[in-house]
Amino acid sequence: MTKVRVDASRAYDIVIERGLLDRAGEYIRAATGAKKAVVVTDANVAALYLERVCASLRAVGLETETFTAQAGEGAKSLAVYGELLEFLSRGGLTRTDTLVALGGGVIGDLTGFAAATYQRGTGFVQLPTTLLADVDSSVGGKTAVNLPTGKNQVGCFYQPHLVLCDPDALGTLPDEQYRCGCAEVIKYGVLGNEAFFEELKTPVSEQVEHVIETCVKMKRELVMRDEFDRGARQLLNLGHSFGHAVEACSDFTILHGQAVAVGMAMIARAAAKRGFCTQETASRIVSLLQRYKLPTETDFTAAELFAAVGADKKRTGATMHLVVPEEIGKCRIVPVPFSDVRGWLQDGGAR
Amino acid sequence: MTKVRVDASRAYDIVIERGLLDRAGEYIRAATGAKKAVVVTDANVAALYLERVCASLRAVGLETETFTAQAGEGAKSLAVYGELLEFLSRGGLTRTDTLVALGGGVIGDLTGFAAATYQRGTGFVQLPTTLLADVDSSVGGKTAVNLPTGKNQVGCFYQPHLVLCDPDALGTLPDEQYRCGCAEVIKYGVLGNEAFFEELKTPVSEQVEHVIETCVKMKRELVMRDEFDRGARQLLNLGHSFGHAVEACSDFTILHGQAVAVGMAMIARAAAKRGFCTQETASRIVSLLQRYKLPTETDFTAAELFAAVGADKKRTGATMHLVVPEEIGKCRIVPVPFSDVRGWLQDGGAR
Repeated sequence: MTKVRVDASRAYDIVIERGLLDRAGEYIRAATGAKKAVVVTDANVAALYLERVCASLRAVGLETETFTAQAGEGAKSLAVYGELLEFLSRGGLTRTDTLVALGGGVIGDLTGFAAATYQRGTGFVQLPTTLLADVDSSVGGKTAVNLPTGKNQVGCFYQPHLVLCDPDALGTLPDEQYRCGCAEVIKYGVLGNEAFFEELKTPVSEQVEHVIETCVKMKRELVMRDEFDRGARQLLNLGHSFGHAVEACSDFTILHGQAVAVGMAMIARAAAKRGFCTQETASRIVSLLQRYKLPTETDFTAAELFAAVGADKKRTGATMHLVVPEEIGKCRIVPVPFSDVRGWLQDGGAR
Repeated sequence: MTKVRVDASRAYDIVIERGLLDRAGEYIRAATGAKKAVVVTDANVAALYLERVCASLRAVGLETETFTAQAGEGAKSLAVYGELLEFLSRGGLTRTDTLVALGGGVIGDLTGFAAATYQRGTGFVQLPTTLLADVDSSVGGKTAVNLPTGKNQVGCFYQPHLVLCDPDALGTLPDEQYRCGCAEVIKYGVLGNEAFFEELKTPVSEQVEHVIETCVKMKRELVMRDEFDRGARQLLNLGHSFGHAVEACSDFTILHGQAVAVGMAMIARAAAKRGFCTQETASRIVSLLQRYKLPTETDFTAAELFAAVGADKKRTGATMHLVVPEEIGKCRIVPVPFSDVRGWLQDGGAR
């Protein structure tokens, strides 16, 4: 069992342990002091793990209800958010009770936003069931839902009271989803840890606990330095500025991790072309992504991607902050006039 | 001109000055650094003040758009919140721009919640146009919308970047609304300032700048001691626990300030009956409320009010925290088992 302590505006533990889903109740009761828990999940995860988690909560005396959303990005909408809030209110949840997010990033983001805003903040526990959620979205307190006009346009910063990562839950993860998580894992290597980048030549699946621990510790450092995402934390956006545009252009048929892989490859190529890093650095990034069968090219044109970037919230007025690799393990935040972004996209390989 | 500095998680100024609406632009540009402002208001206030505020914003070079919601509590819904967010997103507002709430508590609460959550937090300025918003809702960072199941069930804590109180705006306030503000003003006297309570025998309208300054300074102290409402700040709920129940039972046909007046009178009577304060203290509270032609009785039964209290979010599990007067200028937070609340309502005068 590994425990990683995060000292943000709220201090909390990330616990990594096989079989944790069956012991979730004890941890959740101790961390939240709740009398009642509402477990939020999606239809896919419900079929696999919901009963086990509920049994564990009931075993320690917690009154337990469940809310099952549709699977997929569609659950991260204001409509589902409203349904969830009304469900909580009708059930009489109080601000000393807790929500439990059982699922991937979509469920974590939706549940976190509801927990942050229901009665101005109730208990919140993350039980990630995807690699992507383990290493990224369950840690750090970003919550969100989407608008028709763009991803993650609505949300707030709200740290969980506890994160429980059970690597056994990854056993049921579809291969494509697993690889999406690997894209975020590779991101950590590129942005701050060359030794870890090299270790990833051994498959993630053969060292999953080590991988989760390494990534959440790196994320913890960035979150503790910059909880509200005004500086260092933006390094975590490596691959995301262009990745979000790829996602949006595909109407979200390209998965988040795949899009981040494309975005990382593009920014690496553009960085090499513009002299921020060597061609060799860019090639190493692209080939590790390919080793995990992740996409590194896009068919969308620079014009299409540029239009999508314009709608992305990471833009601050007329300037965009791009995270650019200088070496493996060292990235830099580069402010770029918005009008120049199209050139960066072209240098990244977009037509 | 009076300036009151609030040192909460964000530090900001409350400026009190006649004619401020026409100078809002300078203050807002200086406090937020925004390039663009979206002024949110309601149909009633729009007709009176919107053009003046927009002219002042444009005069200092701020790109300015407006969003006008329906007048009344109906604007504090998830539906209007969603419309506002989509309006902001379509207009390309970025997180370094600002929202400006021009109106009373409803507009301030709605706009604040949108500002807190649009792109995880954008600029936020309050321009209160009611006495109630001047002395209470515009200060302290509580934002909210309602659910069909209850008032203020959704929201978060988000401090504004600036509050501009123009007492001249109260010149157009309907008499009934003015008196509602006086209920909150009287609350400050009861909960912490006997000298101020006595001063209120001179009509508020004859000393409005002094009244606003005194109330916001008292609120500031409580907010700085307990920004997230876990202790001392709950004193501000004096009259609100029962007041919210009265509002809910009336289906919100009784105005918030009127309901708070009834709630204060009820808790004062119950406090006297239960020996927390003298009968004379309770009588002084009731008669000052009556001097401002505020209601102090309700026709709803204890059973009806008790059911409504059960849906109120101020309940923490099985315990309710009532704010009980001990003297004029001194109140105490009393934890009461939820089942005893009905008796308190009866002692407060409900059948």
